[in-house]
Amino acid sequence: MRQAGRSLPEYRSLRGEGSILEAIRQPELAAEVTLQPVRRYGVDAAILFSDIVVPLVGIGLDVEVVPGRGPVIAEPFRSRADLARLRPLEPEVDLAYVLEAVKILVGELTVPLIGFAGAPFTVASYLVEGGPSRDFARTKALMHTDPATFGALLDALADLAASALRAQVGAGAAAIQLFDSWAGALSRSDYERHVLPPTRRLLEGLADLGVPRIHFGVGTGELLDLMGAGADVVGVDWRVPLDAARRRVGPHRALQGNLDPAVCLAGIDAASNETRRILAEGGGTGHVFNLGHGVLPATDPGVLGALVELVHAETTDGRVPAGVGDQERA
Amino acid sequence: MRQAGRSLPEYRSLRGEGSILEAIRQPELAAEVTLQPVRRYGVDAAILFSDIVVPLVGIGLDVEVVPGRGPVIAEPFRSRADLARLRPLEPEVDLAYVLEAVKILVGELTVPLIGFAGAPFTVASYLVEGGPSRDFARTKALMHTDPATFGALLDALADLAASALRAQVGAGAAAIQLFDSWAGALSRSDYERHVLPPTRRLLEGLADLGVPRIHFGVGTGELLDLMGAGADVVGVDWRVPLDAARRRVGPHRALQGNLDPAVCLAGIDAASNETRRILAEGGGTGHVFNLGHGVLPATDPGVLGALVELVHAETTDGRVPAGVGDQERA
Repeated sequence: MRQAGRSLPEYRSLRGEGSILEAIRQPELAAEVTLQPVRRYGVDAAILFSDIVVPLVGIGLDVEVVPGRGPVIAEPFRSRADLARLRPLEPEVDLAYVLEAVKILVGELTVPLIGFAGAPFTVASYLVEGGPSRDFARTKALMHTDPATFGALLDALADLAASALRAQVGAGAAAIQLFDSWAGALSRSDYERHVLPPTRRLLEGLADLGVPRIHFGVGTGELLDLMGAGADVVGVDWRVPLDAARRRVGPHRALQGNLDPAVCLAGIDAASNETRRILAEGGGTGHVFNLGHGVLPATDPGVLGALVELVHAETTDGRVPAGVGDQERA
Repeated sequence: MRQAGRSLPEYRSLRGEGSILEAIRQPELAAEVTLQPVRRYGVDAAILFSDIVVPLVGIGLDVEVVPGRGPVIAEPFRSRADLARLRPLEPEVDLAYVLEAVKILVGELTVPLIGFAGAPFTVASYLVEGGPSRDFARTKALMHTDPATFGALLDALADLAASALRAQVGAGAAAIQLFDSWAGALSRSDYERHVLPPTRRLLEGLADLGVPRIHFGVGTGELLDLMGAGADVVGVDWRVPLDAARRRVGPHRALQGNLDPAVCLAGIDAASNETRRILAEGGGTGHVFNLGHGVLPATDPGVLGALVELVHAETTDGRVPAGVGDQERA
């Protein structure tokens, strides 16, 4: 949930107290914020500084990101009539500032840039609840009482995400990540029936881009095999040992994860021990080392720097790139 | 997290706006609140109206339960010196009002009464964080940086829970439930090393009571086999299909769960469909039907009543008792 940047003094000094959506709207600033953790940590990839609600803002919805709370939708989606408010995305116009940031970054980075979007279920949960939620009661009620409207909403959001991802790759992003941060709140049965079809269609529809497609979730241990559909890399949080994740995902997809971000607050020794355990469980191949979730704001940058060094030292064949540096918030 | 009672008008009218800890301190009131969902729903067991922090209050800690927030500890536990504040529980004195409520209930109930306690990790998380937490950063930091103190804290809390549970059974409770509501925040590796040993010792140490021991958690799909240690019944939330849970727990323990409480807000049809799916996945034997978590306050009591009827109708051999009626909050 939290940006790697929040733990960096240079990020806090650059961003100040302003709105994150305002910062994202300034391509030079967004590019600089994206570069900061790459410079500081020497990670093997950068992920764009942006937010999963940016495409919603792009099509004219009234969305704010409230510090300490998260995205808040002025007029939540509650019925079929609300679908009319979701017009198709025109990325060159609606996301012009995002694409400009991507172009700046591609010129400056020496590592690949990951573009991203919010997955249909997670974005739908904000639209239906009107903001962050503990139990997703309204979203699940819509799913069960009006599956046709819920399905149409997820289809529209899948199209939105597909347009946004395609445009980012068009501007130079070398990989894409789909954040379904809240899919772990669903039973497998609900995910399989209501969320898998539009999500799979979205990811499979981007195969022609020829870039790695990363599918991320939290608490999604029971869904990992399903989340592999259309994905090249499946995110695994710290709850699932990587060897168990490997059995569920199968041999043909890479795993990304899965250090508990809270362990980084326990200092270099504890975090290093956990990192070594994870590298061993990951088995050396088909594993992108990363945190299982966002960096916590109180994290000491020195710990993250030490972990990147450790991962590089332990994986001299270069098959396990370190990806600490996610700028996503969802 | 939420009590079944909160969805009942008779509960709200009886409780009013007063403190939950004050209500628990009144045995006649606590007994009446325990009886309400049994009368209304015809469930096959009752669970005592109490709170996992009650033993902490009993040994003199300054704990409040703040409405809408949860337990708040005036002086959090942060170092080895804090262990001195955990004196042994004398249940006949410290929990006199709880045991009185149990005795009243045993005289009035025609179904078994379940006593309960908070598990060492979950109670420790409140003590260390000072209240509810999203990421358990301080608890995990203590676990990793000072495992000896963390272990001593969990040992003391295991003793506290064991005393409380033993006393409730002595007063007439016919089963016990250990709530480790937040264990699902841990990696399997951390659970196995730091939390399993005191928890297993606690549960195994109660075998001589000869009553069923239920071990409950949320988001604990990867821990189910470990949580079976010393337990007769393992709680399963809605994220884990019961057939998968059965493979992990093995054939010798019962499963309890696992309807998503949010589905009850979608009406009788949706909740009934989900209940039928769950009964089928549970396989008929060794399954106690229940919600996977507490009842949400907005739940229509009519839906819960219909589910109990449905479960009774579908399981005429009586091997699948319906347990909707948890009064626990954790």
